[in-house]
Amino acid sequence: MSVALTPIGLIHTPFATKQDAPIQGAFHPEHEGTVEVLPEFEEGLYDIDGFSHLFLIYQFDRAIEAQMRRPTFLSDEEHGLFATRHPARPNPIGLTVVRLLAREGTRLTVGGIDVLDGTPLFDIKPYIPRFDCFPDATEGWFAGVTNRPKPPGRE
Amino acid sequence: MSVALTPIGLIHTPFATKQDAPIQGAFHPEHEGTVEVLPEFEEGLYDIDGFSHLFLIYQFDRAIEAQMRRPTFLSDEEHGLFATRHPARPNPIGLTVVRLLAREGTRLTVGGIDVLDGTPLFDIKPYIPRFDCFPDATEGWFAGVTNRPKPPGRE
Repeated sequence: MSVALTPIGLIHTPFATKQDAPIQGAFHPEHEGTVEVLPEFEEGLYDIDGFSHLFLIYQFDRAIEAQMRRPTFLSDEEHGLFATRHPARPNPIGLTVVRLLAREGTRLTVGGIDVLDGTPLFDIKPYIPRFDCFPDATEGWFAGVTNRPKPPGRE
Repeated sequence: MSVALTPIGLIHTPFATKQDAPIQGAFHPEHEGTVEVLPEFEEGLYDIDGFSHLFLIYQFDRAIEAQMRRPTFLSDEEHGLFATRHPARPNPIGLTVVRLLAREGTRLTVGGIDVLDGTPLFDIKPYIPRFDCFPDATEGWFAGVTNRPKPPGRE
């Protein structure tokens, strides 16, 4: 039983190609983008301005086919797909936390964005530290891994 | 342009009805559930055991139609839908952080779960504090709001 999702807007960023896009927005809080929500959803943005951070749930619309074990952008070893944030997933859903910098009507300016320009947006949710912040969570294979350039040619 | 998602598994919890389900799992870390991933995705769970916390992205499969401004379970005032975590959204996608307690093959035992029994699962992502934990994020209208029973009859 599949479920049909329809984008509620688009995300615009400076990243036209996969090689341009950063691996994680959290490593690059200086990267800004805009979220353009469709006019029929403007009322749904009422009082969103009070939140400094938002979850964006979006479509990995340029991902290759999912592989259940694979190396990632940050690691050359194989990892289980669900132990990674890699785009090539059975359901092409991406998740990122961004900083809300400004809102003008249906346009949100956000910081720490890592998605490709023109990415379809499925949902926006408020980030609430009491629900979403677990500073003592263990990092699994990410422990000790730091940012690096994307390995050339790795999709 | 809609996108078809197909569940990768089901989430089992003690919560058969909306009235039974807690408002947020973070308020109830003692509630346990199981995530049963379909066999064809088992390899994708390789080395997930190293993570103490996971994001579950799932379908709000029993939600009513979206309203752009509405009261919520935690507040009797109207809020913009995208400033809430309410289930009745344009795209019925839910997001929660759970604690990974155990894994046996395709079955994950998780803590702090708040979804209805039989909820279809779209994705699992590792929770990584460096990417996902923002302790100083502001809470918008949630500031000062504490847990309470769901208002009777409120969908």
